[in-house]
Amino acid sequence: MATHHLTEKAQGKFHYTIGPYAEPVLRVRPGDTVVVETADAFEGRITDERVKPSSVLEVPFLNPQSGPIYVEGAEKGDALAVHIDSILPRKDRPGGTTCLIPNFGGLCGTDLTALLHEPLPEKVWKMEVTEAGVRWNGMTFPYTPFLGTISTSPQIDSINALTGGKHGGNMDLPDVCPGATIYLPVKVPGALLYLGDGHATQGDGELCGVAVEFATITTLTVNVVKGWDLQWPRVENDRFIMSVGSARPMEDAARIAYADLVKWLESKFGFDRWDAYFVLSEVGKVRLANMVDPMYTIGASISKEYLKQR
Amino acid sequence: MATHHLTEKAQGKFHYTIGPYAEPVLRVRPGDTVVVETADAFEGRITDERVKPSSVLEVPFLNPQSGPIYVEGAEKGDALAVHIDSILPRKDRPGGTTCLIPNFGGLCGTDLTALLHEPLPEKVWKMEVTEAGVRWNGMTFPYTPFLGTISTSPQIDSINALTGGKHGGNMDLPDVCPGATIYLPVKVPGALLYLGDGHATQGDGELCGVAVEFATITTLTVNVVKGWDLQWPRVENDRFIMSVGSARPMEDAARIAYADLVKWLESKFGFDRWDAYFVLSEVGKVRLANMVDPMYTIGASISKEYLKQR
Amino acid sequence: MATHHLTEKAQGKFHYTIGPYAEPVLRVRPGDTVVVETADAFEGRITDERVKPSSVLEVPFLNPQSGPIYVEGAEKGDALAVHIDSILPRKDRPGGTTCLIPNFGGLCGTDLTALLHEPLPEKVWKMEVTEAGVRWNGMTFPYTPFLGTISTSPQIDSINALTGGKHGGNMDLPDVCPGATIYLPVKVPGALLYLGDGHATQGDGELCGVAVEFATITTLTVNVVKGWDLQWPRVENDRFIMSVGSARPMEDAARIAYADLVKWLESKFGFDRWDAYFVLSEVGKVRLANMVDPMYTIGASISKEYLKQR
Amino acid sequence: MATHHLTEKAQGKFHYTIGPYAEPVLRVRPGDTVVVETADAFEGRITDERVKPSSVLEVPFLNPQSGPIYVEGAEKGDALAVHIDSILPRKDRPGGTTCLIPNFGGLCGTDLTALLHEPLPEKVWKMEVTEAGVRWNGMTFPYTPFLGTISTSPQIDSINALTGGKHGGNMDLPDVCPGATIYLPVKVPGALLYLGDGHATQGDGELCGVAVEFATITTLTVNVVKGWDLQWPRVENDRFIMSVGSARPMEDAARIAYADLVKWLESKFGFDRWDAYFVLSEVGKVRLANMVDPMYTIGASISKEYLKQR
Repeated sequence: MATHHLTEKAQGKFHYTIGPYAEPVLRVRPGDTVVVETADAFEGRITDERVKPSSVLEVPFLNPQSGPIYVEGAEKGDALAVHIDSILPRKDRPGGTTCLIPNFGGLCGTDLTALLHEPLPEKVWKMEVTEAGVRWNGMTFPYTPFLGTISTSPQIDSINALTGGKHGGNMDLPDVCPGATIYLPVKVPGALLYLGDGHATQGDGELCGVAVEFATITTLTVNVVKGWDLQWPRVENDRFIMSVGSARPMEDAARIAYADLVKWLESKFGFDRWDAYFVLSEVGKVRLANMVDPMYTIGASISKEYLKQR
Repeated sequence: MATHHLTEKAQGKFHYTIGPYAEPVLRVRPGDTVVVETADAFEGRITDERVKPSSVLEVPFLNPQSGPIYVEGAEKGDALAVHIDSILPRKDRPGGTTCLIPNFGGLCGTDLTALLHEPLPEKVWKMEVTEAGVRWNGMTFPYTPFLGTISTSPQIDSINALTGGKHGGNMDLPDVCPGATIYLPVKVPGALLYLGDGHATQGDGELCGVAVEFATITTLTVNVVKGWDLQWPRVENDRFIMSVGSARPMEDAARIAYADLVKWLESKFGFDRWDAYFVLSEVGKVRLANMVDPMYTIGASISKEYLKQR
Repeated sequence: MATHHLTEKAQGKFHYTIGPYAEPVLRVRPGDTVVVETADAFEGRITDERVKPSSVLEVPFLNPQSGPIYVEGAEKGDALAVHIDSILPRKDRPGGTTCLIPNFGGLCGTDLTALLHEPLPEKVWKMEVTEAGVRWNGMTFPYTPFLGTISTSPQIDSINALTGGKHGGNMDLPDVCPGATIYLPVKVPGALLYLGDGHATQGDGELCGVAVEFATITTLTVNVVKGWDLQWPRVENDRFIMSVGSARPMEDAARIAYADLVKWLESKFGFDRWDAYFVLSEVGKVRLANMVDPMYTIGASISKEYLKQR
Repeated sequence: MATHHLTEKAQGKFHYTIGPYAEPVLRVRPGDTVVVETADAFEGRITDERVKPSSVLEVPFLNPQSGPIYVEGAEKGDALAVHIDSILPRKDRPGGTTCLIPNFGGLCGTDLTALLHEPLPEKVWKMEVTEAGVRWNGMTFPYTPFLGTISTSPQIDSINALTGGKHGGNMDLPDVCPGATIYLPVKVPGALLYLGDGHATQGDGELCGVAVEFATITTLTVNVVKGWDLQWPRVENDRFIMSVGSARPMEDAARIAYADLVKWLESKFGFDRWDAYFVLSEVGKVRLANMVDPMYTIGASISKEYLKQR
């Protein structure tokens, strides 16, 4: 089991689209650990609170991704299991950033919910980020870091790094955090793992479209589950198992997540289909990950205590 | 401060539509406590697991409501504050019921998501409900009782008891539970409080459309907040404040809840609008109440710890 | 076969909610003709272009309806067949009105799509309406009059006159015009027919939320189809048959309309279910009626030429 | 002005994803005409009515596209103007095909609207297609051919050929037919035009997910409009101008289309923004192109007669 280091410098450049067309920057074996320096979602361009986001951000060059990392032995029809060991703030790129970007966010018109309003005002907030917390204007938010974006490659498409889907992508799901294992479908040889979009903290839905964005040192351990042909990403930790759907409208994301969880309970935990449907009706939990990206993301989970009871 | 008892017998009949056209069954004063016997959502018609739901349930005679209760002094433009003191199982109507009803639920075609599939199978599950828990087939679910439906009267409409909205109604929100205060807009003299649809436990989204339905003895204390002109229901407990939206598609329910919470932070807690938008992006919480009723319901909340920090 | 006249004066007052709780203003027999004076959607309160809509309109007192008209012999489980003979401008209330109302319309935030934008500007446009056309600022739009709202009563609910649904209601469907027969489900004795919201012309979707609103003299002939238990409104004219769905999101309105049309082809025109599904895939037509009301409305139709070919 | 011929054989292979990563198969100049042999959406694999679609179709190798065609001089920020001269049935690949594919279509559960139903039955219908009409089982549908898919390349993404979007793609819009000019945004040098998915006829919404699919000989004339920076596709013919939106939920597709049309009227036809909003409310037309693809597509149009009146 080796440990690899993927520094920002060694990556050369970041990727704004997730697909099979970029060359791997690293090759690892199942069981290996990788320590990755990720950039913040703005690639550091929002340097202070006076910067107008629209003056430094250009579509589609947003949400830079580290990778892709080629995992030996991963083939179409397998699942990639990514365990997140830790996510730490980068000392060389300190601080967190959030902002209001014109025509982006959960409570305004956007390019997909196209309206005739003038955009909301542009705003930037900078804040201190340490493992002790996120400090802003006398308030302290908890330091609950996670990766907004984690993904394997689609088979032949290449999907912009702002969009979640079957491949993972920009789910903005706070459960993709230290201690969790993320299962992603493998569609191409080597899986091609991409990651980025570190969030120091985020509310459910990522309401204004931007969390506390920060540059991270993320440590992952990568494994392959042979012959586990996933349709959508799944997450597991000490407490629960979760299926993740990304779609619009939001009810379709919820349906995907819960339908996948029914099938998981059925195929691996000995539940009859209708019992699974009923049990989730009584003890299922829903996490609204984002209500702002091109695909909304919802995770549906069940506590492991109910799996042990079977 | 008086305590009133509203037995099932005293109510005479239940209501399947919530509006200003029914005669009050009780008149109370602000500060009074009311102990209400509620029926389960099927009015007891699903007596055992061999009953086919479609053979005993008839639209629109579903989800029977207790009330209406006239609150002296409540006028249009006020808010009704309903504190839930306790919800206990009725000893004379023991047990809980859940079921699969044809063309109803979160993972099937319905009358509103009209498809060409045959309905899913009809199923009934009966279970023991006590304050110690809900027991079914060797599993124990927690006893976390709440009212699926609580409402004031709309001004001139009368809305079936299955539909949530600005008036409250069938939100199926687990936070409407003992210890919480529900704020509802008053549109008619006396507010006309309706309640029912006790759930012994329920998962997020009420996936199959039916929680553990049971008959309750619910104790409420009712107050009036003069001149608080709410647009949507709100909830408060020791830990958080929550705004509640009911709409389709689901993202509209989320937008309503969060937009209302922004305005609440702005008007009562000293937040600038954009700071409120930002803070909720980082620490807001979302509860998916139901994804099965004619209007989906979402609650958006913020912990009181962040309100104290201002 | 009698002809009845229902003048504005004889109606006394208009209704803003459609349900079983209002007293009939007229009783007719199947086959009878009724000539009704309808008010415009603003009840004439927008008297000129300087009036701010928000200063004279008050929720829920909007979209005044004539009626209800009791049809002898109509019972639950029947269909009411309303043939529209003609719709003419009222000489005593001349002219048409359209406007921009704050937080209402297809390209702005609304109370259901709740956002943080300032409302769009309020605007009023007045125009000449005659049978020769609608004249505004040098342009002429065709005079294509129809009833935005037509409805039977729900069984026990009362639904505001802005909302479409299974009962008909505010569909804003331009095919509800002279020459067409509208079939509506009967849920209460006498059916209780409501009508109003005359539009002199309207584009697909009623984009800004307001058509060319005008006061009409509408002539209808009313019949009852015994034992035709409709789930949703249907429309028939010389050229096509149409099923009408009202729901959100918009795809659900489309699904309802097309699924009902499949069933109509199956039950009355000798189509196999899958052949009907296929034939509508190739020659079905969709009319977007409104994208602005609490429920969006879509009509799905098939030309009668394909029915004759069977 | 040259005329180029792009036979199936010369293309070598078809493309299932639309992006900048494929080599151009042809280079043309503005004003040139191209005659292209397209494959049907199943690449000919559904050879007769006994074939089960699920046995010969494999995701993501669906909806094969001809191209890409490199147009000299086209640069980012320009619009590609594609005039469709004619669409004829290929004599070497005669006949049309439609079918029911499991978990695909407008009236069933799908991978995005994930439900617990068993799939609808698989079915295949074969039919004769000539310029005189589409004949099936004694019925004749009109021959109204169009390209279901037409596209320029996204800037860095590559999008599967089943999905519509800003780049065009799989819009399934019947107005993309002979006599029409399609305007598409140029994002990469040479624009990279892709086309395919010929439909001999199709109803609004493409209800079951499949039109009358056929192999075509399509003749196009290609031009470049320098400096016309489109956000979404547009269509023009003798009768109207149309803006096209692709999104979910369906109301977002409608909002995109109408908002873009408001801006087109404002920027090119001398309308004030609010007058444009109002005029489209009265005479705008909506075409539901598809309600089955990953993005639903809607076209919003206005008759040229109203543009002349300005």
